[in-house]
Amino acid sequence: MKRAAVSQPEIATLFIAASEQDSNLYYATRFIAPDSFIYMEIKGERLLVMSDLEMDRARAQASVDRVLSYSELEQKAKAQGIKDPTTVDIVHVVLKEFKIRRLLVPANFPFIHATRLQELGYSLKPKRDPFYEQRVVKTADEIRHIETAQRATEDAVAAAFETVRRATIERGWLHLDGEVLTSERIKKLINVKLMERDCVAQHTIVAGGEQACDPHNEGSGPLPAGRSIIFDVFPRSATSRYFADMSRTIVRGATTPDLKRLYQTVKDAQEEAIEKVKDGADGMKIHQGICARFDKAGYKTGLVNGRMQGYFHGTGHGVGLDIHEAPRISRTGSLLQEGHVVTVEPGLYYPGLGAVRIEDMVLVTKDGCRNLTDFPKSFELQDS
Amino acid sequence: MKRAAVSQPEIATLFIAASEQDSNLYYATRFIAPDSFIYMEIKGERLLVMSDLEMDRARAQASVDRVLSYSELEQKAKAQGIKDPTTVDIVHVVLKEFKIRRLLVPANFPFIHATRLQELGYSLKPKRDPFYEQRVVKTADEIRHIETAQRATEDAVAAAFETVRRATIERGWLHLDGEVLTSERIKKLINVKLMERDCVAQHTIVAGGEQACDPHNEGSGPLPAGRSIIFDVFPRSATSRYFADMSRTIVRGATTPDLKRLYQTVKDAQEEAIEKVKDGADGMKIHQGICARFDKAGYKTGLVNGRMQGYFHGTGHGVGLDIHEAPRISRTGSLLQEGHVVTVEPGLYYPGLGAVRIEDMVLVTKDGCRNLTDFPKSFELQDS
Repeated sequence: MKRAAVSQPEIATLFIAASEQDSNLYYATRFIAPDSFIYMEIKGERLLVMSDLEMDRARAQASVDRVLSYSELEQKAKAQGIKDPTTVDIVHVVLKEFKIRRLLVPANFPFIHATRLQELGYSLKPKRDPFYEQRVVKTADEIRHIETAQRATEDAVAAAFETVRRATIERGWLHLDGEVLTSERIKKLINVKLMERDCVAQHTIVAGGEQACDPHNEGSGPLPAGRSIIFDVFPRSATSRYFADMSRTIVRGATTPDLKRLYQTVKDAQEEAIEKVKDGADGMKIHQGICARFDKAGYKTGLVNGRMQGYFHGTGHGVGLDIHEAPRISRTGSLLQEGHVVTVEPGLYYPGLGAVRIEDMVLVTKDGCRNLTDFPKSFELQDS
Repeated sequence: MKRAAVSQPEIATLFIAASEQDSNLYYATRFIAPDSFIYMEIKGERLLVMSDLEMDRARAQASVDRVLSYSELEQKAKAQGIKDPTTVDIVHVVLKEFKIRRLLVPANFPFIHATRLQELGYSLKPKRDPFYEQRVVKTADEIRHIETAQRATEDAVAAAFETVRRATIERGWLHLDGEVLTSERIKKLINVKLMERDCVAQHTIVAGGEQACDPHNEGSGPLPAGRSIIFDVFPRSATSRYFADMSRTIVRGATTPDLKRLYQTVKDAQEEAIEKVKDGADGMKIHQGICARFDKAGYKTGLVNGRMQGYFHGTGHGVGLDIHEAPRISRTGSLLQEGHVVTVEPGLYYPGLGAVRIEDMVLVTKDGCRNLTDFPKSFELQDS
């Protein structure tokens, strides 16, 4: 009796996206384009389909096996009787040649293309992040890129602190060069310094007093004396495309014992959390440890007058080609692994009192972690 | 006889995306967040679902009717027996209350969420861009935002030209301050100047000689004398989030009649195309007009030694919250309409000879267009 060979039908990987906005696609191809393009992994071969406009650049820069011409495939589709071939028709022309019927796609694969592919008889399986598991574990090159961006971040924040140090205090507000010193001026100083180092900073946070009590408020207007000011700076290198991320909290002028205690509580919690980071540690437990510590110190979390206060964000996230990526040190959590790069950034937020967040970026190692951040932590900024 | 009321079952709009990366979602909500959130339009009401972290900021900043709490809806889902509610489970809790079963989603709606919603019995209809038709027609405020970014762009390019003007020519290359003048230095100058004006420039192009023959090559290394250098600068305002876009081509030092003729041909074609722009004009015809003009002038387009040369990109695209958006002046084309903001940017690319691209941004009016660009076009940059 003859037995039919029952082989597992082969599955190909398909992306249709702009790598400018899709870090998995950039990771796979190392090719940046502002408009959507097709990338496929078929039977061990890595293929791009490119427009005439991007062809030369793709052939020179992309780390793939072959670059196919969109316009040539378009001619082929027309020859097969398709009047106005769409992107999916072009994908279909290629997949037919390889006899592929099953596709693995990223979780964010566009629904409109998925629908059309299903109509053509393809079965699609979406995969959540990390789409490429190896993206979570950083190579020596990737760590170097992250550290380069981090050095630029530290220099920019140092320049900002120097400017805040030079400020005078008048009627409770910081002043410099004869005018009130604003969040906008300090943010611009940081962003320009970073651009001078080829790092693109967006949504930089310099938020003081009540504004700082909303963790994502970027800050605006005059900076207060005697109240805490949160700096959160997370630029992307324009050359490597890797991010860095750091937060510090400072105060200028006389402050209160309550605010000093808030700072010390966050600083101690952050240092304890960093000590717990190592290969095999559970991100959820590290996060819960901080929550319990804050609670025990009397810093309660919850809604007060319809507004959250206390500790209501995650303790850390992976950093790489995305500013927020796997793994998480949070209530959902992940097991940490050697080679992960994660932030550790507890914070406490109390309208009326003020807010503190302190954030370092660390590399998980076998026995602990290496702090990639090289910047002092001290609350009270002395007069210059 | 009683007739049953047969009403069209109602359809709700659903986004699950990060507005940082999704301009339709930002347009709808005017709220920027780095991580994915839920936005719905149900029976005339515009709803956000926000995490505790973003709650305060969303309530203060988002232009929606109501902001719901993700964590409260999560409790509700758990009370309904769902152990670990996902984002889609939260959407389901809300939609059930409104008795909605049909959803309109953007073309790029994530496949993984679409699949799960279909399993829950929802029917999804994807809609291509422009998702919001009114986004294509710019308001007075939007035009002002684009012009503000364009003024900053012009000032940055003027500073770059001044630097190129100050360069000396040594052995065919530009030199300044005792060293060779590079694309990188000029790009950084432009990007830093733009950041000083709160504009974020990425992928700025300063490409000379052979590099310029690849339209998306950003340029690197020494800048040549006597050969054309393309500048293409398209920053996004960090405050308004609107883009500007301008290209100019210059040469420093003695050049050839062939290169001067190439420049004049592109300049004349661009001016003719701008004259054709008006309400009701067909983008495809404007594009075809330029193709025909180049062809007639002897500038052929096609593959030579496996590489495209001639004119092989579109003539223009809409500019707004995305750098490339509807409408198109290209081989696919769109009808132009009063209030569109489009680029007009023909170019010619010939390895060996060089490349020229000239780009203005114009506002389509009833009888023509208003050029939003206020910057001279001249090829030969005189010595300073």
